[in-house]
Amino acid sequence: MNSYLFEKATIVGIGLIGSSLARVFKNKNLAKDVSCFDKNQDFLKRAKELKIVDNAYEELKPAIRAADIVIFCTPVGTYSSLAKEICPLMKKDAILTDVGSVKQKAIEDISPFVTKHINFIPAHPVAGTEKSGPNAGFAELFDGRWGIITPLSDSKKEAIEKVKKMWESAGMKVELMAAPHHDKVMAIVSHVPHLIAYSIVGTADDMESQIKKEIIKYSAGGFRDFTRIAGSDPTMWRDVFLTNSQAVLEVLQQVTEDITALQRAIRWKEADKLEDLFKRTRKIRHEVIGAGQHQPENMKTISKKQEN
Amino acid sequence: MNSYLFEKATIVGIGLIGSSLARVFKNKNLAKDVSCFDKNQDFLKRAKELKIVDNAYEELKPAIRAADIVIFCTPVGTYSSLAKEICPLMKKDAILTDVGSVKQKAIEDISPFVTKHINFIPAHPVAGTEKSGPNAGFAELFDGRWGIITPLSDSKKEAIEKVKKMWESAGMKVELMAAPHHDKVMAIVSHVPHLIAYSIVGTADDMESQIKKEIIKYSAGGFRDFTRIAGSDPTMWRDVFLTNSQAVLEVLQQVTEDITALQRAIRWKEADKLEDLFKRTRKIRHEVIGAGQHQPENMKTISKKQEN
Repeated sequence: MNSYLFEKATIVGIGLIGSSLARVFKNKNLAKDVSCFDKNQDFLKRAKELKIVDNAYEELKPAIRAADIVIFCTPVGTYSSLAKEICPLMKKDAILTDVGSVKQKAIEDISPFVTKHINFIPAHPVAGTEKSGPNAGFAELFDGRWGIITPLSDSKKEAIEKVKKMWESAGMKVELMAAPHHDKVMAIVSHVPHLIAYSIVGTADDMESQIKKEIIKYSAGGFRDFTRIAGSDPTMWRDVFLTNSQAVLEVLQQVTEDITALQRAIRWKEADKLEDLFKRTRKIRHEVIGAGQHQPENMKTISKKQEN
Repeated sequence: MNSYLFEKATIVGIGLIGSSLARVFKNKNLAKDVSCFDKNQDFLKRAKELKIVDNAYEELKPAIRAADIVIFCTPVGTYSSLAKEICPLMKKDAILTDVGSVKQKAIEDISPFVTKHINFIPAHPVAGTEKSGPNAGFAELFDGRWGIITPLSDSKKEAIEKVKKMWESAGMKVELMAAPHHDKVMAIVSHVPHLIAYSIVGTADDMESQIKKEIIKYSAGGFRDFTRIAGSDPTMWRDVFLTNSQAVLEVLQQVTEDITALQRAIRWKEADKLEDLFKRTRKIRHEVIGAGQHQPENMKTISKKQEN
């Protein structure tokens, strides 16, 4: 009798999220065979060296064939062509899941290739750092964070339960949610903040080189935090904005209106209006701390290192 | 023979910055008598309990009278009325300095009250956290950060040198700069990033309560970093925006134009434009790391606690 959650699990894309999940699989003994597929030969080699996978494949067939679960850990923009190739290779009753930050488009792109005999369970672990690649991953990435599953109307209960268990084993608190609602909440919580950070760091990058040097030199004043967010994976985030464009543009409209209102308040020296807002936002900060969501994932690695 | 930098140093305002500086004075034995003045009785009491000052005054006269250096650590908006009361009480050849994030307005507000027999040396230690009050302070706050002095045309060299030594004792790398240039650089590096963070957290706060709950719950997705910045002291930041309004509005104009351009790129699915920007901003992040400016001050306290 074995107690593995899966016999064979195959991670497609062994970057930050994929390699962190592989580490969880290894640490928690979630699968007898932890495999990965990637187009990047260096990533495959590194994953083997790090001993976070049993097998690293550069071809799909052997990677997918015997897998009980296949997990897409690549940018959302790759889903359609990956699903087209992967779904026909999957064994009967196997689970297909993903980690994409946008769920409606993920479902739209994958669903056409999902046959009756496989179970597609869309999911999104809300965790990450600004780093990329298998070296950047760590098993604690998901610990204490939220994992969101956005099941389809015909998703089998047992398959949902297995994906839930997988993320719970990684330390996540798991919630079920409808995909459109997920995309709206993430537009506010994650996508627009990233876009604003990208934008403002881009503004600085456009400045003449002397000022740019000084911006970097004195970045500890606040700009630094934006550079951290704006250092996130370019391809992944390009796909996020293109695939969740409607919700992002809606929130962005509201954000730019609010910035304009603040500009006006500064121009007309409306001290009370400014202070009232700043007091309200400070309350929100306290609520974030109260909800235990304030420690960045990249600090967890630092804490871990200091423990060793 | 003593080796104190000052016989008596008086810190006006024993909040985050003031109390951190008091801790430096005590740790490094920079003054025989470290005193503070504050209007907040709880802060005075706490400063005494923490043993970070020798004397905590609620009246100006005894606090200022014998001081060789008086350091304004209050919001910039208080400078004019404080200077009016304090300058006439200061002893001959004493130094008056400040820690304000805006230098032109600080100079404009303080200078009218500076008599010939005292030395006014405007300064700005570029360091801080989102917390306030004497409990939030810690001696390492300034360590490895930049301290900027914006001397006046008639500032005495020896007085500049003493203020420089004070901040170097706190671990700062000190630079001299013209006040208008300082204000422009800080508008980009610090003031506008704070304003944007305040704005976007305010946008979230305006949303209906169910969505707001979820924003806080899932804030680890990126929004969290904005709440940290937007949790900063409301009065201090109100004053920053009102006193550096011209530079802030100028930069803000450029930022909103750039956000609008990004909105357009998303609407028209200009994938390459997005990815190109995201690659450029990632480079900037690497430059910030290269400049050693990436570790937040609030992580220093965590590191310290873990060492103990």
